[in-house]
Amino acid sequence: MREVAIVGAGMTRFGELWQSGLRDLFAEAAVEALELAGADHLDAIYVGNMSGGRFVGQEHLGPLMAEQLGMAGVPATRVESACASGGVALRTAFLEVASGLSDLVLAAGVEKMTDGADVTDVLATAADQELEAYHGITFPGLYAMIARAHMDAFGTTEEDLAHVAVKNHRHGALNPKAQFRRELTVDQVLKSAIVAEPLRLLHCSPVSDGAAAVLLCPLDQARRYTDRPVKILGSGMASAPMALANREDLSSLDAVRLSAERAYKMSDTDPGKIDVAEVHDCFSIAEICCIEGIGMVEKGKGGEAARTGFTALGGRRPVNTSGGLKSKGHPVGATGIAQAIEIFEQLRGEAGERQVPEAAIGLTQNMGGSGASSVVHVFGRV
Amino acid sequence: MREVAIVGAGMTRFGELWQSGLRDLFAEAAVEALELAGADHLDAIYVGNMSGGRFVGQEHLGPLMAEQLGMAGVPATRVESACASGGVALRTAFLEVASGLSDLVLAAGVEKMTDGADVTDVLATAADQELEAYHGITFPGLYAMIARAHMDAFGTTEEDLAHVAVKNHRHGALNPKAQFRRELTVDQVLKSAIVAEPLRLLHCSPVSDGAAAVLLCPLDQARRYTDRPVKILGSGMASAPMALANREDLSSLDAVRLSAERAYKMSDTDPGKIDVAEVHDCFSIAEICCIEGIGMVEKGKGGEAARTGFTALGGRRPVNTSGGLKSKGHPVGATGIAQAIEIFEQLRGEAGERQVPEAAIGLTQNMGGSGASSVVHVFGRV
Repeated sequence: MREVAIVGAGMTRFGELWQSGLRDLFAEAAVEALELAGADHLDAIYVGNMSGGRFVGQEHLGPLMAEQLGMAGVPATRVESACASGGVALRTAFLEVASGLSDLVLAAGVEKMTDGADVTDVLATAADQELEAYHGITFPGLYAMIARAHMDAFGTTEEDLAHVAVKNHRHGALNPKAQFRRELTVDQVLKSAIVAEPLRLLHCSPVSDGAAAVLLCPLDQARRYTDRPVKILGSGMASAPMALANREDLSSLDAVRLSAERAYKMSDTDPGKIDVAEVHDCFSIAEICCIEGIGMVEKGKGGEAARTGFTALGGRRPVNTSGGLKSKGHPVGATGIAQAIEIFEQLRGEAGERQVPEAAIGLTQNMGGSGASSVVHVFGRV
Repeated sequence: MREVAIVGAGMTRFGELWQSGLRDLFAEAAVEALELAGADHLDAIYVGNMSGGRFVGQEHLGPLMAEQLGMAGVPATRVESACASGGVALRTAFLEVASGLSDLVLAAGVEKMTDGADVTDVLATAADQELEAYHGITFPGLYAMIARAHMDAFGTTEEDLAHVAVKNHRHGALNPKAQFRRELTVDQVLKSAIVAEPLRLLHCSPVSDGAAAVLLCPLDQARRYTDRPVKILGSGMASAPMALANREDLSSLDAVRLSAERAYKMSDTDPGKIDVAEVHDCFSIAEICCIEGIGMVEKGKGGEAARTGFTALGGRRPVNTSGGLKSKGHPVGATGIAQAIEIFEQLRGEAGERQVPEAAIGLTQNMGGSGASSVVHVFGRV
């Protein structure tokens, strides 16, 4: 396998972007990535998108996006793994460059969620339709059960959950691309409306529009495009039973653990080597389970990590310096790529007020549904 | 890049399979492919599916299918390029094995179209939503315009179109997996109801349920699984403008031509070397344009190929010996894989009454929408 680097990145602001359609969002992010690298052609495009068919009546996004870039002809594939679609786009693009078939590949993600679809209903297609969604449960309910299991097993508290949201809003307030650039207090979180007990409104990531794109090439060609390439050290992916009823333990996310183990193995790293990480905080409980799953904290200790400042900017292991899904926003297909962009900027020393000093190795963890799929990438400064 | 072979294949019968859901169909095909090869594990799964979200309310098919196989944990990705989703699944699986990351990868496709969704409306998500589908046009109308352009430019006749359907039904009558195992006459086609002039009912492929799967591994490991592996000699993919209004010439399918050129280049072959081909005859005019696009006949000469017997079993260049989409059926996400299975069987000498004598090199061409994406693979006997 060839070594692969990221040499360009671009993303739209995340938010309710009424003025932009799916293809506008994609093109804005893609053009920014191409311009940053000074690249004028592509060998292939991968588009991560969860449900263009349900959100805006548009499947077949690959060729549509190639055309929008003025690059009709270029092979362009849509990949999907629910909210992990962006991470999967990065992984497939990585494999195409690593294989030797292509030199310059765009990995992008895009979602347009605010165009009138019943968002909760559409997102429920990421759960098991026959065993879960058909019977009426939606994602806040699924994650509420996971939260309850974690509380019962480890004594995790509602305050612990609130601290995740507070930390990520503090980070997101520093991110010009974030949907919500305002800080929250623990008290505000604990007084926000119940969505699915114990999860309240301010434990939940928002409904968002947005796109993100990164440009990949073989490491040995990277200096043509940038003097600060970021190497993809490892890629790990895993699945797990989809319906919660089919899992042995609701408080653990097996796909997260497995995908991280695979990425650490490929990259010859371990959790102790990770300077900065972006993990999938679609609900505050998810961040807690994910930092346990990637081995950043011991099983059962995730609840205290935000409260004690361990995972905050300035702490030992900063997590979701971008603001995470909670504050930055969560246009589902774009999220995995946006995570990679935060790490790209951190490892290049370009994260501004969010910069983690001396960050040399970073990790992204992007999850589908209630954890049935997970993709982990480890990145290194070159 | 490592050399890659297909060592196992399985598919359901195509048809209105009321008794089977999406995951049942997938598992039936996948288990058959694994058993044929005597394989008991997988390193990765790619699932081609056009619109599980719209047809049956299920996105996130990767992990669901891994779980259904009893293989939760295995990385599993859904890929989509409308009706070319199966071809794209084959291509991404090929790249993963070629890259060296994985040894044993399943490329599958599945679609469940008869569960109550408005099929015409769902299929229209493969067209340009903003420029075409929103304004009311559906696929028979788009291909009718392509047919008119071909008739105007080259004198192609309604009889020429009918001969494609007649030929493919004659082939499909010999295929135990085909949806329609009965022959048609030209007269029957010409007297069938108009759908979108000049296209009649019997020029159109049907609405189908079904799944298909092939098992890939490095060529140098193939003999562990079979004594008759089939090598993937080349893979080509291309995009083209999606809306017909954005194309220079409606009678040509640029993505087909480009994807074929790329596959010939990688495989060091040319149209003259192809003994048997499966091409994307979603409508009879599509087969005519596609055999021109892959260079099997000169531009403008596609109309006479079925009529003269050139592309029939026993002719110089048999096309769609499986019965094609028209007779075998067209569960959209599964089609590209089913095409590969026909070639796999032909090159192994296992095609029974449909066998092309001495077939050594075969080709598949799988198309998305009205030709905005196309994937071509070239296969060789080992």
